[in-house]
Amino acid sequence: MPRRIVIIGAHAAGVDAASAARKTDRTAEITLITKQKQAGYSPCGIPFVLGRHIPSFDKLIVFPQSYFRMMKLNLMLETTATNIDTKNKTVEIRDKTGKQEKLQYDSLIIATGAYPFVPPIKGREKQGVYVLRTIEDGKKIDQAINNGAKTAIVMGAGLIGIETAVALQERGLRTTVVELLPQILPTMLDADMAKSVQEMLEQKGINIMVSKGVEEFLGTDRVTGIIAGGEQINADLIIAAFGVKPNTELAKKAGIAIGETRGIKTNIRMETNVKDVYAAGDCAECIHMVTQRPALSQLGTTAVRQAKVAGINAAGGYAVFPGVLGSAVTKLFDTEIGVTGLTEFFAKRAGLETITGTIASKTRPEYYPGGVSIKIKLVVEKETERIVGAQIVGGEQVTQRINALSFAIQKQMTVRDLAKADTAYAPPLNETWEPMVLAAEVALRKLR
Amino acid sequence: MPRRIVIIGAHAAGVDAASAARKTDRTAEITLITKQKQAGYSPCGIPFVLGRHIPSFDKLIVFPQSYFRMMKLNLMLETTATNIDTKNKTVEIRDKTGKQEKLQYDSLIIATGAYPFVPPIKGREKQGVYVLRTIEDGKKIDQAINNGAKTAIVMGAGLIGIETAVALQERGLRTTVVELLPQILPTMLDADMAKSVQEMLEQKGINIMVSKGVEEFLGTDRVTGIIAGGEQINADLIIAAFGVKPNTELAKKAGIAIGETRGIKTNIRMETNVKDVYAAGDCAECIHMVTQRPALSQLGTTAVRQAKVAGINAAGGYAVFPGVLGSAVTKLFDTEIGVTGLTEFFAKRAGLETITGTIASKTRPEYYPGGVSIKIKLVVEKETERIVGAQIVGGEQVTQRINALSFAIQKQMTVRDLAKADTAYAPPLNETWEPMVLAAEVALRKLR
Repeated sequence: MPRRIVIIGAHAAGVDAASAARKTDRTAEITLITKQKQAGYSPCGIPFVLGRHIPSFDKLIVFPQSYFRMMKLNLMLETTATNIDTKNKTVEIRDKTGKQEKLQYDSLIIATGAYPFVPPIKGREKQGVYVLRTIEDGKKIDQAINNGAKTAIVMGAGLIGIETAVALQERGLRTTVVELLPQILPTMLDADMAKSVQEMLEQKGINIMVSKGVEEFLGTDRVTGIIAGGEQINADLIIAAFGVKPNTELAKKAGIAIGETRGIKTNIRMETNVKDVYAAGDCAECIHMVTQRPALSQLGTTAVRQAKVAGINAAGGYAVFPGVLGSAVTKLFDTEIGVTGLTEFFAKRAGLETITGTIASKTRPEYYPGGVSIKIKLVVEKETERIVGAQIVGGEQVTQRINALSFAIQKQMTVRDLAKADTAYAPPLNETWEPMVLAAEVALRKLR
Repeated sequence: MPRRIVIIGAHAAGVDAASAARKTDRTAEITLITKQKQAGYSPCGIPFVLGRHIPSFDKLIVFPQSYFRMMKLNLMLETTATNIDTKNKTVEIRDKTGKQEKLQYDSLIIATGAYPFVPPIKGREKQGVYVLRTIEDGKKIDQAINNGAKTAIVMGAGLIGIETAVALQERGLRTTVVELLPQILPTMLDADMAKSVQEMLEQKGINIMVSKGVEEFLGTDRVTGIIAGGEQINADLIIAAFGVKPNTELAKKAGIAIGETRGIKTNIRMETNVKDVYAAGDCAECIHMVTQRPALSQLGTTAVRQAKVAGINAAGGYAVFPGVLGSAVTKLFDTEIGVTGLTEFFAKRAGLETITGTIASKTRPEYYPGGVSIKIKLVVEKETERIVGAQIVGGEQVTQRINALSFAIQKQMTVRDLAKADTAYAPPLNETWEPMVLAAEVALRKLR
């Protein structure tokens, strides 16, 4: 009898898990369940559709129906998993007509993702606050803009909040970002690095209010404004981007262990505490490569990497997940921003003693036209002299510099190694002394 | 009495050695000697001035006279070092007026660079073959173009030859490249990767003849054509780019040991076999990080890294050079090309048993406009599964991918590590599955 693999969720994690499972076991019966109308799309692209860099939401569908057919994956759209019975190895589902059914599984992969949360703010029960998670969410915001919205408030200055604010500004809305913490991008950048991003965004016309909590939603039926830091602000479009939390309700109800990060606990095979039940993606906890402590990564890249491991194991193969460094990048207007490993702030919070090296340099020699400023900050653990984190703001080729520093962290490169690394150069492409190497030099001076 | 440091050579290696020496010993008397009229410029930029990407040759001067004054460096232009006496620690010099002098040194750094060589081809004694090494050389070629040259032959398809051919084509000359070996860029790329570069160059109109030796220089006084592969080709501008050889005559005459690569032998402090005599840059041999064998890198980046180590040691400090991987990149028209570590060919020649992983992928998701094709080849040592080399043709952010793979090689990353590496992604900047990771996957399948 073929192995039955059930996957709850059908986006980055769900589909990549299914693909890996299929490649591992060609005869398995693989079923994906999703509440949504569409499966296999890239939610990371939504802000860039709003900003009109991508022509339509449909383009975001990375895995069309034909892919599921080709890979012989049974996809159930608009279907909700309502219960998991780990003893009898069943998942109860309900389709959009209300019809219920029990699916038997040999292996189960929970890839339920995360949901945008709104803190308990006065007036939270009111209608009309937008979120940005699904294509449906994106379409609603797009509709509001097309209907003539002229002003917007984005609550929360995390990556999604900032990317959305940039998109709205690009669409011509006067946009205000409100953030409770004293800086933007607080989980991605240290305050010193975030400051230059904030200045750039303000120059582009975005109004940014940091250290300001949202105290109240205003409006009668629908929210028409907020009170933040004692000040009333009205807007045509109000978006909650306070952050996302793992969807773990189903898992909890089934007695599957939840970790300290509130994600589903997993071992290095992405298996939960219950045999044959795996978790992957935004709902799953994993181990941070530097701190060796549980972490919630909630990035698309982490999701697909975890999913591949979960899929292989669920299909009877063997694969382990090495942990995360949280490497992430974005492009805001023309400015690239990236991070890998720990920020100085989070390194301190994890108990590490660190020194840092920050430089501002150029991406090309002075004599070659088109070079731009780049700012790199390295975070170095003091005793081992190992690089444990890096942040980059501005410049060119930021993504691949982040990848280079991610490899460096992963392979426990010291700042001394980096200061002597063999780097590549040509006048149109880079400086003779690579800026990452210069940043290592700066850090090294503090260690001597 | 202050330490006397004499440096023969005043470009990348010479000036960086002088700077490092000055930072190590603030009171040293530091003298740089160069035959040339100008010091401290970037020869790597010359083809890009010819191609008009850089507005003038003067722009290439990275270290102006003011820099030498500020750093209190005694710069002697148009001065030739004629003899080194390592016993009495003197260097004999002769200035352009013919005046001779002996300089006493406590430490000597030989940074004499390399010279473009022309093989013993029939008619080699004839005038009018251009080379491309110094600004003067570049100006002569530029002059010939301005004087109406319409056709060009570049002999040699190494990096300098190809960069020059591209520049000539950009200036409107009908350009032919003649290469003895069966591929272009033979020290940089394997034949399979070089093929796609050759096709691109041919599409841009460059005529490329591989497996064709230059048999004769034609013309009465001045060379007006060549015979290559039995065929006669005439051109207005004939450039020799057969390669460069280390300038070691002075060192040899002084009894300083020359290595098997014909570069000056050095230890990890960049010291020669003679105490207090150092070598750096294109004239110096060093150790390849992968093969652990002597290598001649002859790259600007290697020159400055070696020079820094030599400068620190010459000034009484302590620094070691970790070896080279030969990371190099260039941009030919819009195509970026890069290499680090060993090619498959050179790995085999060094006795390594390897497997490779090559992929063609895209630099951005299908749905995001502007993504381009990228081809990555990884070379992996079979027993240790370590990455020992990588080549990239096309794409975006090639330089920093090369740096990432250079770090990977330096830190002995296995192809298994790379297949699970934590990489960064955002729709405008990269694919979810980083192409380097996909190439690792391909290689890995051959190891299972």
